[in-house]
Amino acid sequence: MSSEPFELTATEAAIAIKKGKLNPIDLALSCIERFELCEDQVKAYAYFDKKFFLRQVQSLGFIKSQLHGLPIAVKDMIDTIDMPTQHNSPIYRGHQPSKDAAIVSILKSLGGIISGKTETHEFAAGGKLPATTNPHNKAHTAGGSSSGSAAAIASGTTMLSIGTQTGGSVLRPASFCGIFGMKPTFGSVSREGAKFYSVSLDTIGWYGRSVADLSLLAENTRAIRNSPNLTVKKETKSFAICELPKSNLASSNANKALEEAASLLSKSGHKVKKLSLPKKFENLYQTQLTIMKGEGRTAFLAEYLGNFDLLAKDFKDRVEDADNISFEKLRNSYDYAAECRKEFDNIASDFDGVISIGAPGVAPESLNTTGDAIFQRIWSVLHVPAIALPGFFGEKELPIGIQMVAPRFMDANLLEAANQASLSFNCTKVFPVLNKN
Amino acid sequence: MSSEPFELTATEAAIAIKKGKLNPIDLALSCIERFELCEDQVKAYAYFDKKFFLRQVQSLGFIKSQLHGLPIAVKDMIDTIDMPTQHNSPIYRGHQPSKDAAIVSILKSLGGIISGKTETHEFAAGGKLPATTNPHNKAHTAGGSSSGSAAAIASGTTMLSIGTQTGGSVLRPASFCGIFGMKPTFGSVSREGAKFYSVSLDTIGWYGRSVADLSLLAENTRAIRNSPNLTVKKETKSFAICELPKSNLASSNANKALEEAASLLSKSGHKVKKLSLPKKFENLYQTQLTIMKGEGRTAFLAEYLGNFDLLAKDFKDRVEDADNISFEKLRNSYDYAAECRKEFDNIASDFDGVISIGAPGVAPESLNTTGDAIFQRIWSVLHVPAIALPGFFGEKELPIGIQMVAPRFMDANLLEAANQASLSFNCTKVFPVLNKN
Repeated sequence: MSSEPFELTATEAAIAIKKGKLNPIDLALSCIERFELCEDQVKAYAYFDKKFFLRQVQSLGFIKSQLHGLPIAVKDMIDTIDMPTQHNSPIYRGHQPSKDAAIVSILKSLGGIISGKTETHEFAAGGKLPATTNPHNKAHTAGGSSSGSAAAIASGTTMLSIGTQTGGSVLRPASFCGIFGMKPTFGSVSREGAKFYSVSLDTIGWYGRSVADLSLLAENTRAIRNSPNLTVKKETKSFAICELPKSNLASSNANKALEEAASLLSKSGHKVKKLSLPKKFENLYQTQLTIMKGEGRTAFLAEYLGNFDLLAKDFKDRVEDADNISFEKLRNSYDYAAECRKEFDNIASDFDGVISIGAPGVAPESLNTTGDAIFQRIWSVLHVPAIALPGFFGEKELPIGIQMVAPRFMDANLLEAANQASLSFNCTKVFPVLNKN
Repeated sequence: MSSEPFELTATEAAIAIKKGKLNPIDLALSCIERFELCEDQVKAYAYFDKKFFLRQVQSLGFIKSQLHGLPIAVKDMIDTIDMPTQHNSPIYRGHQPSKDAAIVSILKSLGGIISGKTETHEFAAGGKLPATTNPHNKAHTAGGSSSGSAAAIASGTTMLSIGTQTGGSVLRPASFCGIFGMKPTFGSVSREGAKFYSVSLDTIGWYGRSVADLSLLAENTRAIRNSPNLTVKKETKSFAICELPKSNLASSNANKALEEAASLLSKSGHKVKKLSLPKKFENLYQTQLTIMKGEGRTAFLAEYLGNFDLLAKDFKDRVEDADNISFEKLRNSYDYAAECRKEFDNIASDFDGVISIGAPGVAPESLNTTGDAIFQRIWSVLHVPAIALPGFFGEKELPIGIQMVAPRFMDANLLEAANQASLSFNCTKVFPVLNKN
């Protein structure tokens, strides 16, 4: 057991709590102490009230699930009945929902503790940038839009956190922050009470410090139906190393991380094959953008009509259809995406996990960008479950993740494959970090 | 002009308001008077506060749109910041949202007046039945789940109303109540702030007293991009009379209405052809049920975990997967639906409107059912825009509607076709009704 509770994985903490070896109060106090050390630099939170955090832990009843007493930070575009939900938008300054989003309600019912609300790119979509810095180096972005949720895990101020992905908003921050992230199959967790951007793409996802942590949330939110076997015993899996469209735009470090992953998996005795996607999949990058922006036309109309002066240009552009996305183009994109989903599931069903680069490179040195979702868009539009795995590094020793996906609804199998891969990568001891650079 | 303001169509009222010939206050007072006459019998509303209704009208600013001063009733599973939103569920008794749903915010920004919240089947999905009776005969159902929104239009207590459709919840009540109803193309209006049932199917829709009324909402919510030409001059259109799968389950009156519609359209000089859908479309009825129930598994998990004792069996069945909808079955249903969407759009693009029966028959004589969505499911799962047209009658002179659909996103063309058909049917003077039988 680590020296401080905040250094545990959520799974380790859950076991310790169940065995009576860890008091949830002590876990909360440890996270709060860590918050006080990190937050000035990391700026992961839009809202954090340590007294309220502790009060929640104090009022915990009997153990209802493995989430009992675990601090879980929630992206600030997901409604919470007892904390403001501000979407990083002036329109929602001080906005207090009167109901929890479905995911928040589920977590609370299971004994999870909502520890705070985390920084997000405005409406998880554009506009105002998050203030969050990368815990590995404060001059670099933590990624977006689930910036705060990723940075909170990486810096150790929470045990689990919730984000969302429409383009690349869960997996990219995971890559930049060197943590584990998961976007389950589209539709497998309710996103009622989260702000809409793209009705066909928005997906609730989460972060943790191990594949088991990701599984803890997948199981308890019922994104999967059965517990995966996350043994530390080696089981031979079959992996595809997939070259994504536009991978010429990736840095040498991103490609090196993928090669290193392939090599480590081979050395561990896993089956590793190269996979080239059919030529037609090249269009999916554009298809994702078309669907996201086309659906954004309706998503922000209420704010456009009701609060025009407070709405950022990005959202006005969506409503005004600045990108000229005709209904016909949108319909064709729906049909094309659907066709590719079926085809990809067939291709991917030959493997336990399909691995690709996780981002174009390490986190950019800037807080004026959250990086590029270019290598997540294809997986988002294919609706497949996707897991970010850390354990690789680029320039300045900044982390760079890889992604692993599987056919739609094969989330449990994907968790098993990712778990085996993570054993090969030996990526379990890279955090929490706080680099004062 | 009619003798009482409530007897106008919304479009007529909008023109009169714009010309200064009708004061929105007088319109509201007329609707309130009608409410006082009808509500004891019709039970269309879950919430109606006449003082607040009037206060809203009194505080209207300058005219922002054609919706200025028009009373619009909203289904009580759509959030309103100033009226309770109770979903006909004991879990939400007295629940007061702190934010308007997107559709409500849009309507208010345009000068629409939210006149009250209307009765719904619990969560627009099952469980507790709505109290609403059919304004044509109080022993009969008004249909569901948008029961109150349809009955409010039919009885004349509001000028427009908002409902939702997942299976057949907008179009079926329209058929039973003898009014106009529209479900736009899936995704073309934001449903943020409406209760989730099926993330791939839930659609905001609306009711009115003419095709122009439906268009008023389609234009102002930007479900369509350009104003359709709703001339009263005859323009020749091309219609398909489509025999739906399972049409052997329809009553002779339902089939008679469809034949009568075909005959009236022919007589008016429109092109009318029979259309048989490909054999494979027979499965879509089941596909819709699989997707709806499969997605319902996640939609009600928050209530299941948080309020088990107050949750109706229907919703427990969804969460517990009583229908054994495996992930594989759900995925196959997604792919099958997507394939048929593309195919149907191709088929339907040969016509201005594809017409089918609107319900198995007239509204059943019972308040223990809301009728059967069997003939809406196919159009819901195909994501196509659908319009209910009245003007036909069955036993006891109860209304029976027909449905007209078009390819996805051809909503504006569909409105034009429906407008022409409605001229042939001469169905503009069948309401408001209140039959004290």
